Amino acid sequence: MKKNISKAVIGRLPRYYRYLGEMIEEGTERISSKDLAGRMKVTASQIRQDLNNFGGFGQQGYGYNVRSLYNEIGKLLGIDQQHNLIIIGAGRLGQALANYPNFSKRGFVIKAMFDENPALIGKTVRGIEILSIDELEDFLKNNEIQIATLTIPKTEALRIFDRLKACGIKAFWNFAHTDLPTERGDGLFVENVHLSESLMQLSYRVYEAGREKNPYGTKQTGKDKLK
Amino acid sequence: MKKNISKAVIGRLPRYYRYLGEMIEEGTERISSKDLAGRMKVTASQIRQDLNNFGGFGQQGYGYNVRSLYNEIGKLLGIDQQHNLIIIGAGRLGQALANYPNFSKRGFVIKAMFDENPALIGKTVRGIEILSIDELEDFLKNNEIQIATLTIPKTEALRIFDRLKACGIKAFWNFAHTDLPTERGDGLFVENVHLSESLMQLSYRVYEAGREKNPYGTKQTGKDKLK
Repeated sequence: MKKNISKAVIGRLPRYYRYLGEMIEEGTERISSKDLAGRMKVTASQIRQDLNNFGGFGQQGYGYNVRSLYNEIGKLLGIDQQHNLIIIGAGRLGQALANYPNFSKRGFVIKAMFDENPALIGKTVRGIEILSIDELEDFLKNNEIQIATLTIPKTEALRIFDRLKACGIKAFWNFAHTDLPTERGDGLFVENVHLSESLMQLSYRVYEAGREKNPYGTKQTGKDKLK
Repeated sequence: MKKNISKAVIGRLPRYYRYLGEMIEEGTERISSKDLAGRMKVTASQIRQDLNNFGGFGQQGYGYNVRSLYNEIGKLLGIDQQHNLIIIGAGRLGQALANYPNFSKRGFVIKAMFDENPALIGKTVRGIEILSIDELEDFLKNNEIQIATLTIPKTEALRIFDRLKACGIKAFWNFAHTDLPTERGDGLFVENVHLSESLMQLSYRVYEAGREKNPYGTKQTGKDKLK
């Protein structure tokens, strides 16, 4: 089942999941594809097509049962499983992730953070301990960890990536501003979050829309003019 | 010029920019589409097609001049301009962004952070002051700000979004786990970074690849088995 689902559809699943979760919180029990479309600002036909990929959970004249659609999409996303994570790099970004309560609600449990900075080692963030990076291999031998999060500078990333691979880690959530090299068939999964690239896409879109005019629509003074 | 460029191409531009920047640091002056393709693990024909969208900067038999291609893509991305940002929400994530040195190198200058927490107001991160959220409107009246970054809980996001729009802010870099409502033609630009959705896409891919087998390829003990 569930073969050949396009990347675009997969990319939309977490957003369905989020909207459905909000509807559960509001007490909505069922919703038509038209109403769901209205909320999500997509077309009803896209919703029907997307959800048909998974066998379609709606019924003619009834719409979708919010809770069961939520559960089914959660299963597809692997959220019914517990995923144990570690974070390499306990700086502000690593700590921000450790501090985020929603990850564990969705089954993503951060088991430890690692750093090389003696000022950080031994501290805890929301009960998650910061260990020395020297303990990485021992820790991975003694704990079931599925996902490694890299919040380290790009200059460190490849060395750490190799160490993690050697310990059998297959899934990487990468915030380091570099590509982690994978090959077809090596069984590795990398999801990148390149923050500055997302910021550049924002500025591209702003500038593309208004290259001839004042792009941001703000007043321009001589002193502060963009140059 | 530069019309009708697909979203996919635009999405790839920051990655070209990053690779070219690394080549400049290494002292590489020119590169063929074949060698660039090898580095970036895409096909040479995709590189030629992508760059042809912008008039193509390569020359037959010579390849691309790394520095001028870098500069041209930088211009397309608006990086030759200075963009002034504020960050709403001076928690760990907001502070992590404020602490990131590469943004200002690329022309994204963070001018202030805002928070409602008295324990944070008045502090600075890398010289960037944390102001009271009550000062938001005054600050925006007296400073040219183009981009607002939201690192606040979703429950606060819409209220802050409205206040920022009322001050004329058009571009939003949104980390709040909700969609900011925009309408076609309203001239607003939103770039979302939904961290937990990126994590779910990672777990989807891992599970999709190995639903029947042990998905992460790690040993499974009775105690630690995923459940």
